[in-house]
Amino acid sequence: MFVLGIDPGLSRCGYGVIKIGKPKEKAVSAGVIRTSPNEVTSVRLFEIRNEIRTLISEYRPEVVAIERVLFQRNVKTAVSVSQVIGVIMVEALDADCEIAEYSPTEVKLAVAGYGGAQKAEIQTMVQLLLGIEKKLDPVDAADALAVALCYSANRSMVAR
Amino acid sequence: MFVLGIDPGLSRCGYGVIKIGKPKEKAVSAGVIRTSPNEVTSVRLFEIRNEIRTLISEYRPEVVAIERVLFQRNVKTAVSVSQVIGVIMVEALDADCEIAEYSPTEVKLAVAGYGGAQKAEIQTMVQLLLGIEKKLDPVDAADALAVALCYSANRSMVAR
Repeated sequence: MFVLGIDPGLSRCGYGVIKIGKPKEKAVSAGVIRTSPNEVTSVRLFEIRNEIRTLISEYRPEVVAIERVLFQRNVKTAVSVSQVIGVIMVEALDADCEIAEYSPTEVKLAVAGYGGAQKAEIQTMVQLLLGIEKKLDPVDAADALAVALCYSANRSMVAR
Repeated sequence: MFVLGIDPGLSRCGYGVIKIGKPKEKAVSAGVIRTSPNEVTSVRLFEIRNEIRTLISEYRPEVVAIERVLFQRNVKTAVSVSQVIGVIMVEALDADCEIAEYSPTEVKLAVAGYGGAQKAEIQTMVQLLLGIEKKLDPVDAADALAVALCYSANRSMVAR
């Protein structure tokens, strides 16, 4: 099964598709959807929606896993990230995907083993877990793969 | 031309359709989309999206006017309201509607003449401006009509 992980953002929205399987997960695709701050918000959301629609129709994930907005961030960012999350949720449901949401701490815990892990550690662990040799760039792509891996980790815990 | 005004919210999302014309605006439809707190957010957003889609296909508004999220509100509310706004924006663009956004203060200013107007004053002014005799209930419907009227007021200012 395929899982699409999302690190949501209006300027940069990371995505990562993994295949859950034995003996371990494989990275299928990862990247970043960028939108221009010169565009109005509605157009930027529309562009993200279209890119997500293309990704879902290409990879047919069963699950879309999304990182929750961090309340501690500044409110303006919280607003735009929330808008992105809302748009992606509806697009995912439209395509009959299951939706999973994880806090940043849950993602860090699942991928690096502790909730206080730094960006660089997450990046390294994602590469290790997925057997990716070259450095994952940009970091939003690694973060999105981490969200997808978080779904996978929680799923195996439930299965045990 | 028709304008769809939105007072966005996850539990209660007010909507109001007005027809802009001479000698004055007319109310066409108003109400509230309610979703249950027992449902997960994604399903609630999906329901709101479907209702908005129905309204747009029924009334074919040229403009969807949306009240901005109030930063001072608590963050949890800001997140859910922002999610609703994002979903509605994309749906409106999908239907080739123009999108207008107004702050609560702009809406109050346009409808009641001052930015500090109370809920009840807005309700009364909306009824007066649209020639509605019976009390607008619930208040979310009146608020949504106020947002649509705000678009109309700003439009005539630009035209002058």
